[in-house]
Amino acid sequence: MNAPHKPAPLEDVQSSRDVRNIAINKVGIKSLRHPVKVADRAEGVQHTVAGFDMYVYLPEHYKGTHMSRFVQLLNSHEQAISVASFEQMAREMVGKLEAESGYIEMRFPFFMNKTAPVSGVQSLMDYDVSLIGEIRQGVFTQTIKVVVAATSLCPCSKKISEYGAHNQRSHVTITAQVNDRVWLEELIRVAEEEASCEVYGILKRPDEKYVTEQAYDNPKFVEDFIRDVAARLNGDPRIDRYVVEVENFESIHNHSAYALIEHDKRTA
Amino acid sequence: MNAPHKPAPLEDVQSSRDVRNIAINKVGIKSLRHPVKVADRAEGVQHTVAGFDMYVYLPEHYKGTHMSRFVQLLNSHEQAISVASFEQMAREMVGKLEAESGYIEMRFPFFMNKTAPVSGVQSLMDYDVSLIGEIRQGVFTQTIKVVVAATSLCPCSKKISEYGAHNQRSHVTITAQVNDRVWLEELIRVAEEEASCEVYGILKRPDEKYVTEQAYDNPKFVEDFIRDVAARLNGDPRIDRYVVEVENFESIHNHSAYALIEHDKRTA
Amino acid sequence: MNAPHKPAPLEDVQSSRDVRNIAINKVGIKSLRHPVKVADRAEGVQHTVAGFDMYVYLPEHYKGTHMSRFVQLLNSHEQAISVASFEQMAREMVGKLEAESGYIEMRFPFFMNKTAPVSGVQSLMDYDVSLIGEIRQGVFTQTIKVVVAATSLCPCSKKISEYGAHNQRSHVTITAQVNDRVWLEELIRVAEEEASCEVYGILKRPDEKYVTEQAYDNPKFVEDFIRDVAARLNGDPRIDRYVVEVENFESIHNHSAYALIEHDKRTA
Amino acid sequence: MNAPHKPAPLEDVQSSRDVRNIAINKVGIKSLRHPVKVADRAEGVQHTVAGFDMYVYLPEHYKGTHMSRFVQLLNSHEQAISVASFEQMAREMVGKLEAESGYIEMRFPFFMNKTAPVSGVQSLMDYDVSLIGEIRQGVFTQTIKVVVAATSLCPCSKKISEYGAHNQRSHVTITAQVNDRVWLEELIRVAEEEASCEVYGILKRPDEKYVTEQAYDNPKFVEDFIRDVAARLNGDPRIDRYVVEVENFESIHNHSAYALIEHDKRTA
Repeated sequence: MNAPHKPAPLEDVQSSRDVRNIAINKVGIKSLRHPVKVADRAEGVQHTVAGFDMYVYLPEHYKGTHMSRFVQLLNSHEQAISVASFEQMAREMVGKLEAESGYIEMRFPFFMNKTAPVSGVQSLMDYDVSLIGEIRQGVFTQTIKVVVAATSLCPCSKKISEYGAHNQRSHVTITAQVNDRVWLEELIRVAEEEASCEVYGILKRPDEKYVTEQAYDNPKFVEDFIRDVAARLNGDPRIDRYVVEVENFESIHNHSAYALIEHDKRTA
Repeated sequence: MNAPHKPAPLEDVQSSRDVRNIAINKVGIKSLRHPVKVADRAEGVQHTVAGFDMYVYLPEHYKGTHMSRFVQLLNSHEQAISVASFEQMAREMVGKLEAESGYIEMRFPFFMNKTAPVSGVQSLMDYDVSLIGEIRQGVFTQTIKVVVAATSLCPCSKKISEYGAHNQRSHVTITAQVNDRVWLEELIRVAEEEASCEVYGILKRPDEKYVTEQAYDNPKFVEDFIRDVAARLNGDPRIDRYVVEVENFESIHNHSAYALIEHDKRTA
Repeated sequence: MNAPHKPAPLEDVQSSRDVRNIAINKVGIKSLRHPVKVADRAEGVQHTVAGFDMYVYLPEHYKGTHMSRFVQLLNSHEQAISVASFEQMAREMVGKLEAESGYIEMRFPFFMNKTAPVSGVQSLMDYDVSLIGEIRQGVFTQTIKVVVAATSLCPCSKKISEYGAHNQRSHVTITAQVNDRVWLEELIRVAEEEASCEVYGILKRPDEKYVTEQAYDNPKFVEDFIRDVAARLNGDPRIDRYVVEVENFESIHNHSAYALIEHDKRTA
Repeated sequence: MNAPHKPAPLEDVQSSRDVRNIAINKVGIKSLRHPVKVADRAEGVQHTVAGFDMYVYLPEHYKGTHMSRFVQLLNSHEQAISVASFEQMAREMVGKLEAESGYIEMRFPFFMNKTAPVSGVQSLMDYDVSLIGEIRQGVFTQTIKVVVAATSLCPCSKKISEYGAHNQRSHVTITAQVNDRVWLEELIRVAEEEASCEVYGILKRPDEKYVTEQAYDNPKFVEDFIRDVAARLNGDPRIDRYVVEVENFESIHNHSAYALIEHDKRTA
């Protein structure tokens, strides 16, 4: 076995100076899972599990950051997190890390209670949601991302076929930088309302008839779907900037149809 | 546009007879996410989010099952779920689906509070856990699966090198069929205790020194690691049958070292 | 810095005896990627990239296996691999590792040229395929696994709706233990022929009309789809044993409908 | 069954005008797999399998694009693809789609033959590589992305411990926009040379001793590692702009340490 020897005292290696003269835009921890409480519009608070990325900006003359402090922040955090309180969490992080700039992203499954369109049966729907907070030299920007499953039905297939029309599950992803309070539920509803049809956890037979006919009455190409979502976001003054993506997991192919619109209202 | 026509009344297509004379071992829903409460040993109850697979056996003369009932079961379930109460949930499912046999799997991140070995700092650790319940003609079997991250350090590297030894993150997966109450925390601890060293959410410098030396003092090949876990499971009479897997995400290769031991005590 | 010291000579630690008296069912390497040539029915040979798992059985008195020999086998292998030649590769592995029993799995994307149903346009379709070879005390068994994307259309939705019917991409997975030569293409075709409709890389408008109407004319529940595939496998004497799975990525839900049939003809 | 009716003639729905007045930045196909030949520096040509994303810009007055043409492009492409020939492929795409701007991304496993440092044994190493070509109003930009596995060893752990030091597998991701020919192999080598140590497919015992000691002699925090890679990229005039990321899959935690540097030399 290797001979033990006297190690250095437990000095703080990361605090020494760095001579390469290169700043690091983001340094910290990635993919840490933690249980969280999220404040939602309907219920007050829901419990979920989040994946966290937490980074700070490191100026060129600092050798390193203090990784354990990021995790401590999470372990000491007790309150429910919401879009409204996320700024505070981001500010705590950069404060604790003695940084001017930082980035925090929290990804989690989010649940909404939905009511089936005819039977009125209630069930939960799940959405992948991210809150992203960025502080640049003291200025905070809040970004919200929602991934929403929905139905899309192909207008071309409907038009040229004697009966039927191919349809499929689609994912709509809205990434919106906001300047005021926007509920997660609001962005989710935009995506659902502009689909050929919404999807649900539970559908009884009369509901299944309804969603089948509703999708057939409301065919949309990926281009239509994404433009209709973009038009809604264009009309909301609380959104400064957004990216929308629609991915259709085509039922007649083994690849996706995809579209993306990005828009910054302040530079356009 | 396609001409509407008069559809059939909303009859129950799935309940008609099937003539192919082939039974289906499992039919139901897969990958449904739902928030759950899990009873744990330390805290009483923790909130998490689970992915559910729920299936029943379908005899050859039945055409189909009733998919929406699986989801209804989850939406109506309010109590905390534990290893002890899982049988009841499985029995409710087969009852609601009018089946003799069924299978339910619930996968979720599970958290334990851990104490750093020297500083005593507390932090949460996350584990991927599954509860699996199977009913075959009325008889219930309970299976627990835990995936535990840990450190492994290579004995060969240590022995042949003048200093250092390669080490890496490993995943230990224990899948155990139990005949009595076994806490998730017990299986997790077996995996952690047999590693070269445990991993933690937060380590202060004195802790980091400790785990580094502890791993170096306790080198294990993937073969050693898995045998040490298996020996522990062999000694626990509450476990009828198990599979252990260890996967080392080698720090000197871009592939894994892997081992698997399966053992059924009742037939061995 | 830690003081260097004299290490042990480069002895072969893995070859020493083990005293825990526990055999290891599988030990080796996992998730190693390697380019391969695969012999197919149509073209002779296609190039693809495979993920390999390679394990041997380790008796209780041996301490460890020789990980680098697995990788050497791949790096020295030059010929095209086929279902027919896979036994030889498995036997080489256990020979090289001085084992009696072993397991080798090779997962790869496999391509077939398909012809659109009306326009006759050609395009490639991709399938996830695995070859699995197992040697137990000298006896070889060959298992083939194919994952095939296809369209499924819901009979209930069609029957109860005035127009349209929900349909979606489905995955059919056939895992078949064979006693004679079975081409990958044969299993793939079984899955495609029993779907509501096949999927293609390229479809022109007349093709899109065709597949839309074909799916509508041929609605299948997940239970129908899987039974129709199972009936085909039941009729093929070259297949001793199989598992079929069908997963429908429902266009009206955010979860899947799923079914599984397993059958061992030798014990049934 | 729904009554068939006379469908519209097979008109080209996508070519009609759109009135929403919103341009689409990217529309096309995503996640299409296709076998490709890639020209590499050492061997001339290697065969691999790529995932393709292919998009064009759609001005506000066009209703849709022609999805099948993207796939046709791939099916008609016979030559080996290289960094040098990628522009031609991107230009073919926008030409075929009658677009001014477009985006093509091709992701594939790429293999290099590596020689073990002491024994000289040869083995293949795999890397995830992407070629990204973008045409904006006729101007082409080429981006190369490589993901390289390597070893990182923690300086703090080494310094404070009597023996040993935790180390782990890391992923270095370099995304570089280039103005001249840069071989994939060159970017990969930058990442490997700046690691605590490289990783290999096969290591014999003398090699394992070498890499263990090499990593121990060359400890790097995630901050050091990324700065050393960035310094190399700063010095290469063929690179206009880059993002480097380093993710350490910590062997003492269940989360990653992560750093990112982005730099645009033309605006800095």
